[in-house]
Amino acid sequence: MRPSSREEFLRLDAEDPLAPIREQFDLPAQLIYLDGNSLGAMPRQARNQLAEAISQWSNGLISSWNDAGWAEAPTRVGDKIGRLLGAHPSEVVMGDTTSVNLYKALSAALSLQRGPILTDEQNFPTDLYIAGAVAKKYGVELRRVPRNRLGAAIQRGVAVVTATHVDYRTGHMLDMRELTKAAHDVGALFVWDLCHSAGAVPLDLNGAEVDLAVGCTYKFLNGGPGAPAYTFAARRLHGDLDNPIPGWFGHDQPFDFDSGYTPAPDARRFLTGTPAILSMAALEAAIDLWLTIDIALVRSKSVALADLLIQKCQGFGLELASPAEPSMRGSQVSFRHPNAYGLVRALAEVGVVGDHRPPDIARFGLTPLYTRYVDMWDAAEKLSEVLRQRTYLAPRFAARVGVP
Amino acid sequence: MRPSSREEFLRLDAEDPLAPIREQFDLPAQLIYLDGNSLGAMPRQARNQLAEAISQWSNGLISSWNDAGWAEAPTRVGDKIGRLLGAHPSEVVMGDTTSVNLYKALSAALSLQRGPILTDEQNFPTDLYIAGAVAKKYGVELRRVPRNRLGAAIQRGVAVVTATHVDYRTGHMLDMRELTKAAHDVGALFVWDLCHSAGAVPLDLNGAEVDLAVGCTYKFLNGGPGAPAYTFAARRLHGDLDNPIPGWFGHDQPFDFDSGYTPAPDARRFLTGTPAILSMAALEAAIDLWLTIDIALVRSKSVALADLLIQKCQGFGLELASPAEPSMRGSQVSFRHPNAYGLVRALAEVGVVGDHRPPDIARFGLTPLYTRYVDMWDAAEKLSEVLRQRTYLAPRFAARVGVP
Repeated sequence: MRPSSREEFLRLDAEDPLAPIREQFDLPAQLIYLDGNSLGAMPRQARNQLAEAISQWSNGLISSWNDAGWAEAPTRVGDKIGRLLGAHPSEVVMGDTTSVNLYKALSAALSLQRGPILTDEQNFPTDLYIAGAVAKKYGVELRRVPRNRLGAAIQRGVAVVTATHVDYRTGHMLDMRELTKAAHDVGALFVWDLCHSAGAVPLDLNGAEVDLAVGCTYKFLNGGPGAPAYTFAARRLHGDLDNPIPGWFGHDQPFDFDSGYTPAPDARRFLTGTPAILSMAALEAAIDLWLTIDIALVRSKSVALADLLIQKCQGFGLELASPAEPSMRGSQVSFRHPNAYGLVRALAEVGVVGDHRPPDIARFGLTPLYTRYVDMWDAAEKLSEVLRQRTYLAPRFAARVGVP
Repeated sequence: MRPSSREEFLRLDAEDPLAPIREQFDLPAQLIYLDGNSLGAMPRQARNQLAEAISQWSNGLISSWNDAGWAEAPTRVGDKIGRLLGAHPSEVVMGDTTSVNLYKALSAALSLQRGPILTDEQNFPTDLYIAGAVAKKYGVELRRVPRNRLGAAIQRGVAVVTATHVDYRTGHMLDMRELTKAAHDVGALFVWDLCHSAGAVPLDLNGAEVDLAVGCTYKFLNGGPGAPAYTFAARRLHGDLDNPIPGWFGHDQPFDFDSGYTPAPDARRFLTGTPAILSMAALEAAIDLWLTIDIALVRSKSVALADLLIQKCQGFGLELASPAEPSMRGSQVSFRHPNAYGLVRALAEVGVVGDHRPPDIARFGLTPLYTRYVDMWDAAEKLSEVLRQRTYLAPRFAARVGVP
């Protein structure tokens, strides 16, 4: 039965086992924040953990590298995130940005086997830049094919396939298990970008026999603006993967100050420089919260929120850009509209924060830890109002400014 | 006249124009912290700036990328640090780690002109790993020569020279202007690592016609543990330098989400991924403090502190590992001792924090913003006591643990 009144949406919230989690976040009153797929909200505990890191810095000074566990943070937090990804201990490390980590992972894969890189031409731009740079470095072809032809293009001769699991514009989700298998069947490795997947959908990297994966932590994982990114490397490949940017934190014995490089035996070899401890502190608080949560509940609520939003926006004259089929969708709903930018700005003025992606996408992220069912009702009501009044045509929305 | 009593050292502090700056730092009472060349102390303002960044995250959410200036942080803070380096605006950007930035800078230099990389074999280990990886990538030789033969080894045929300006073990400082000129005279580019220079000694990168430089911000600059690193690229080279890891923050128009890469016209092209905003916030507070300070005063106090410490430690049976000549020294004093590790640990137990570097270096960083003249007296007294009592031989100092 479809809920058809605000009261019924409120009742869904009252019955939602995840509803109490919202209290763990610091959110502006009255705001309907549907952009947690760009920057996740702040877990209250992040403030405390940062205060603790500040105290470790000011009081413990250099000794905090040992005494406060700073030196192990990249692997400690990596192992924690690994539990959300379906990874074993020592398969995930934290550091650098998604872009840098993708560069490392693609380079490591191409060092193992030289040949064309295949990717989705709708991939996140920076992924395309990085894949292009790595292809050029190794003197191999970068094959860009439409996302819906990626599976068909996985042919013998391809060395590495790389794609973003959940598309940032539409939320379209690829079949990780099937595509990874298709790559393996032709002898290729697959490097996944999980930026819009971790914390959004259940993941089982080892179940899908994934080789390498990278992702950010500031979206669904709520790690804070520009929080350290992660690299996953399957245990079976550890000995064969070379970090193209070998730095002391990836050395087997970093504090021996050895003038020759011996990589750590596991995924730690993908680390390079000194980790950003303050950013890591906020991230660890966010991940500790995630580890108390059942991702299956998150997924079922995400699907329910999306379906309700899609239903409630029917008749608005918007074209659904996201797959209607939940199993093909991450945790967002996108619509196409010729004035998508103005639409998103006009909505923000009435307290609903979504996001615009060029050229014509209005994107609404669903973050079940702090997004309520009633938010879907209220957001759709406000969207309807903006569309009816055409406030999106206001001249103040003409100059576009962007955010990550 | 040499001061010869604790009272005379206290008098030097009373006359020191930098003395009031110490109040801007949060320091444990009674501690003599001579490891600010490893991790700088915390400027009090960093706590406030982090609290503000936290509030920008929790209240402003995604809009803070524009409204709170997050998106411009890498260039805004870069320009500020540029003022400490003798750089023009748009020549310095913040992001990633020193290691990653060195990789980018060396790759960019080798893309301009292929040929051997020359470096100092005593260079910081991670610099050697990175230089080795870049040399391998381009199929060129990595020539490692003793630090004191670096100048002589700058011969025609060398494409790129890279060295750390101030040596992390001994504090030995190279002549930046002379060596850069020597490199240019044979058609080579010079990539400097300034980790132990910025905030320690006056720098004039453009005066020395430096091509490229990288450095960290968590030592003398007091930016916080693992704070973002910087890249300097001389304006005259901007159009010719390619970032080997091209990411969206280095794109001319990052928020156009362009599937093709067009580099920013200036040093911003060396950026890659999303900046670590929380770590950047603390760093910016530290740099804002630096911009109120006359580096010439810092340098003269640094030289005075070092000379006093060296004088006061004469007769202790320690071998001075740092140059005795101030103009050849950064802002540290290092001694060799067969039990250097135990010595440093034993000193820490009596409230003097120095650092050990393998195999036999005890290193004392001098950070004139918060190091006092009387600290030299007290540190030397305690050092004398430890040496006399041989507490460094205690079994609890046998197992070595390291810190960055």
